[in-house]
Amino acid sequence: MTRKREFPLAQVYGLLEPGPVVLVTTARAGRANIMPMSWHTMMEFVPPLVGCVISNLNYTFETLRTTGECVINVPTAELAKMVVACGNVSGQSEDKFKTLGLTPVAASVVKPPLIAECYANLECKVMDRTLVSAYDLFILEVVKAWIDPERKNSKTLHHRGYGRFAIDGRIISLPSRMR
Amino acid sequence: MTRKREFPLAQVYGLLEPGPVVLVTTARAGRANIMPMSWHTMMEFVPPLVGCVISNLNYTFETLRTTGECVINVPTAELAKMVVACGNVSGQSEDKFKTLGLTPVAASVVKPPLIAECYANLECKVMDRTLVSAYDLFILEVVKAWIDPERKNSKTLHHRGYGRFAIDGRIISLPSRMR
Repeated sequence: MTRKREFPLAQVYGLLEPGPVVLVTTARAGRANIMPMSWHTMMEFVPPLVGCVISNLNYTFETLRTTGECVINVPTAELAKMVVACGNVSGQSEDKFKTLGLTPVAASVVKPPLIAECYANLECKVMDRTLVSAYDLFILEVVKAWIDPERKNSKTLHHRGYGRFAIDGRIISLPSRMR
Repeated sequence: MTRKREFPLAQVYGLLEPGPVVLVTTARAGRANIMPMSWHTMMEFVPPLVGCVISNLNYTFETLRTTGECVINVPTAELAKMVVACGNVSGQSEDKFKTLGLTPVAASVVKPPLIAECYANLECKVMDRTLVSAYDLFILEVVKAWIDPERKNSKTLHHRGYGRFAIDGRIISLPSRMR
């Protein structure tokens, strides 16, 4: 993939633990879709497991439940307007890659495409559906990860509701015994 | 509670959805403990449900499983050193409120105390234990929420691993149809 290189699975938690809004790509019958998501958490370091809540009102829910595959793409602050636009239309009626001017790139393990413009991409498979019907909670395993090595410390977006976001500011580093 | 006022439960998601590191207080046999946590996600708007992964290697795990109650406290960036220090010692051997110089304040519904120094405090009860044994995943219901009205847009901390944090920077607001 252009410019991107494989990212160690054991370091994936450092991308999602800080709580960035992400874009989830799914695909069904050869057609890809994109959905912004902020309700996710790391659940295990290795293999990296991610819990995410995707409302059954979203078009993505049924696709993910049926296909069991998705890609979590991490956008940077420059893409904020696109992220909000992505949430304002439904994938049922529009081809979001076309509408939003994004570039799909073939993934290596799963069918849904990576979004080239996002600085990190995590190929995922659904590995536990126990709480899908009760809470719309999918537990995903990240099976392959990609990062743009030139944008490793990118500023991400943190949704506070209704289109308000905090953008990453200063980075601090303190001596810690915790991973 | 000094300076703090009750916060509407329907707005709680705006505090946790951006992914801040939080401090979880629990209490057993009259003794309170504190643990930093970054593995959490909103799961429902109203009543606010929060999924959180608390390793069974932590002292907090057993207390939460036994008592079914905790408080999620949201610290601001000024408290970064204390947050890291909190993760570097075990509550089994130390009284963390004393060691860290924090002020416990009685909660209104649950037994564990609120941390006065944190700008928001969410009193929680465990409401689903289905995936506790498989993934250490507790699903909590927020039953009462408090905020410091003078620090509503506080800068929070986003953990990137090993004591590195991104501090909230600029806030942007874009027209959105999504909550």
